Amino acid sequence: MAANSPSLRVAILGAGTVGSQVIRLLSEQADDYAGRIGGHLEISAVVVRDVTAPRDTEIDPALLTTDAEAAIAGADLVIELIGGIEPARTFVLSALNQGKTVVTGNKALLAAHGPELYEAAAESNADLYYEAAVAGAIPVVYGLRESLAGDKISQVLGIVNGTTNFILDSMASSGASYEEALAEAQRLGFAEADPTADVEGLDAAAKCAILASLAFHTRVSIDDVAVEGITGITADDIAQAQSSGQTIKLLAIAERKTGPDGKEGVSVRVHPALVPVSHPLSTVSGAFNAVVVEGEAAGRLMFYGQGAGGAPTASAVLSDLVAAASHRLHGGHAPRELVYADLPILPAEAAETEYQIRLQVEDSIGVLAEVARLFADRGVSIRSVDQVGGHDGASSLVIATHRAPESAQQAVVKALAESSAVRGVSSILRREGA
Amino acid sequence: MAANSPSLRVAILGAGTVGSQVIRLLSEQADDYAGRIGGHLEISAVVVRDVTAPRDTEIDPALLTTDAEAAIAGADLVIELIGGIEPARTFVLSALNQGKTVVTGNKALLAAHGPELYEAAAESNADLYYEAAVAGAIPVVYGLRESLAGDKISQVLGIVNGTTNFILDSMASSGASYEEALAEAQRLGFAEADPTADVEGLDAAAKCAILASLAFHTRVSIDDVAVEGITGITADDIAQAQSSGQTIKLLAIAERKTGPDGKEGVSVRVHPALVPVSHPLSTVSGAFNAVVVEGEAAGRLMFYGQGAGGAPTASAVLSDLVAAASHRLHGGHAPRELVYADLPILPAEAAETEYQIRLQVEDSIGVLAEVARLFADRGVSIRSVDQVGGHDGASSLVIATHRAPESAQQAVVKALAESSAVRGVSSILRREGA
Repeated sequence: MAANSPSLRVAILGAGTVGSQVIRLLSEQADDYAGRIGGHLEISAVVVRDVTAPRDTEIDPALLTTDAEAAIAGADLVIELIGGIEPARTFVLSALNQGKTVVTGNKALLAAHGPELYEAAAESNADLYYEAAVAGAIPVVYGLRESLAGDKISQVLGIVNGTTNFILDSMASSGASYEEALAEAQRLGFAEADPTADVEGLDAAAKCAILASLAFHTRVSIDDVAVEGITGITADDIAQAQSSGQTIKLLAIAERKTGPDGKEGVSVRVHPALVPVSHPLSTVSGAFNAVVVEGEAAGRLMFYGQGAGGAPTASAVLSDLVAAASHRLHGGHAPRELVYADLPILPAEAAETEYQIRLQVEDSIGVLAEVARLFADRGVSIRSVDQVGGHDGASSLVIATHRAPESAQQAVVKALAESSAVRGVSSILRREGA
Repeated sequence: MAANSPSLRVAILGAGTVGSQVIRLLSEQADDYAGRIGGHLEISAVVVRDVTAPRDTEIDPALLTTDAEAAIAGADLVIELIGGIEPARTFVLSALNQGKTVVTGNKALLAAHGPELYEAAAESNADLYYEAAVAGAIPVVYGLRESLAGDKISQVLGIVNGTTNFILDSMASSGASYEEALAEAQRLGFAEADPTADVEGLDAAAKCAILASLAFHTRVSIDDVAVEGITGITADDIAQAQSSGQTIKLLAIAERKTGPDGKEGVSVRVHPALVPVSHPLSTVSGAFNAVVVEGEAAGRLMFYGQGAGGAPTASAVLSDLVAAASHRLHGGHAPRELVYADLPILPAEAAETEYQIRLQVEDSIGVLAEVARLFADRGVSIRSVDQVGGHDGASSLVIATHRAPESAQQAVVKALAESSAVRGVSSILRREGA
């Protein structure tokens, strides 16, 4: 590039795993970026908590600062990679209020305070990008925000948490218990010392809220998402799934559906589910992520790739940065937040789910009829019944249902627990993608 | 939308399978589009060859015309769905020269005359969109053109032709011969009466050229692509692949690699290849398409979905239309053609390939040593040798190589054919994704 080509000043907030990869790639591929953008990207500041802390990546000491507000004021584009709500929220709002373009990978912030950020952006005519907030390098935010802008989406089904996918995968391949697989994941660095946010489904719920907002042009926050984690999954559940041609995945699910009042709404939930091995999501292994989007015209699309890690997440940040920089130099804006559809969020009980229930019943004549009646009376239709063993005068049954309201499924489970024909319910799993 | 919201006039050239779906979706989802764009899309003309021809979709007769130039002159946005080179090329150039935004799904036109179209667009500051030209609804053009703009891509590997994937799939599932599977595909409407463009790999080659141009910021035309179709694949090849944990796919391959002169270049080719069943492309079945992109930072990404058909292709056209319309109303442009890298296209012989060769040899002592020497002398390293049967004093061997220059692999094949130890070479297949 000519020395007098236009230049943009970039402030980077946070120099952790992702931040240091962003700094590395920006320096290594500077000429490439210049070619793509038609101008130079110049790092004007790197904001850290402690400028004297040791770092993996070499950063020009003159760029390091603890003064975020000064760094923001002196930049054209601000990359927020601090994570968490505060002080990230304050800094992002400050940058947007000053008309700076913001690129962030902060899913927690978006899922909790998205509307506030969008409004600040709209008021100052500033741009907000967040590809890195969902599924690392996988361009699913882009896909929903732009590529599928011409389609009507009916469902988004995603494996968006690598830690839980790694744990479930290792349970399936080794027969290990949940506790053993979690310990292994922690040892290998795939799970944190406090794994709550991952294993309880909270990380997936934040991403689910962002995906649902984009897919259905409606404001969805993490509090709208019904969440169930993987801590209750047993080695037995996994073995049972394998023997019936299924695999267990923690899914983020966002669906457009008709609610109990006959009006269209959005159902958002995160829970483990049985997925048939013929479904493309069943092959997503280890720490990979994938999101399946069903569009009315597009049909089924899947986006697959590395959902976490410094370099993949940095790749997503840099995609946004290139788009953002091009817009700043040549005009144009990020897509606005679109909430024109403003669909109601349906209550968790209104979701339509399929259940697979494993239970022990008395091994005597008439028991199956009795059990079947408990389903029928609550409007739940049975898809299949399999006897999978038995001893001591009891039979083990696996009953799979057709799709029915979650409330009806739960009523069946309650009735089964109370029935004298049933000795016990040993496992309840939902099924998706069949 | 308010009646006085801005309005854009859209001329549609061609009312075939895709065009009629575009017209249907534009009318059915008019309010949605208005919400997304902030303005109305109004079809101003539908250009057809014969206004009296019977049509599947109802089109307002007042819109139908044979006068393409008048339709273009009266529109803001032009959607070209005629296909083929002429008159599509003339119409697209005319529209771009008048500063109209053009959305096209015409892969043949782009692969043959891309640079001319880009130049016309640049000169008039007009926008050219073509998501629908590659892999139907799958947003891979978007992915490469925008989402991965911040990464350095090393390889693109795609299943981009549904007809050949359907044929290979049906050979694998039924054991049918190529001819039988082709006839079945024709009967079901998955292959045309003259299947040449599909089965000889020409359709895939056009898409390969477009993908390579985008991935490597270099002008690649269909003439640069080394092409081999699937007509030589036998039921025996398929059975052999299955028994060794592999599947045969027609792949479009675009790679960044170091050429014989030590300089970086681009290798582009289309050929059938053995793919291990553990690779995500192996699970892409039937008429589905998928493109795997390897980015330096992003790692492996896969885009998967319906690669053809009226509605999926229309979905891609409408995504482009929404982006194009937003840009026309609110400022901004489509990404420019980026050819700053301008890498040389490497000759076909410089590609690095793995071969799997099935051959019959004399069943006598020293033959394997003799055969192995033919590989070693030409610098090709053997990965594995399997004896897969034999009769009449002959052995059948399957020899898989490591990666070596295509020229060396071909020299080995020639030497094998001339060797007195070899009775015959019955199959040669390349391997990818191992």
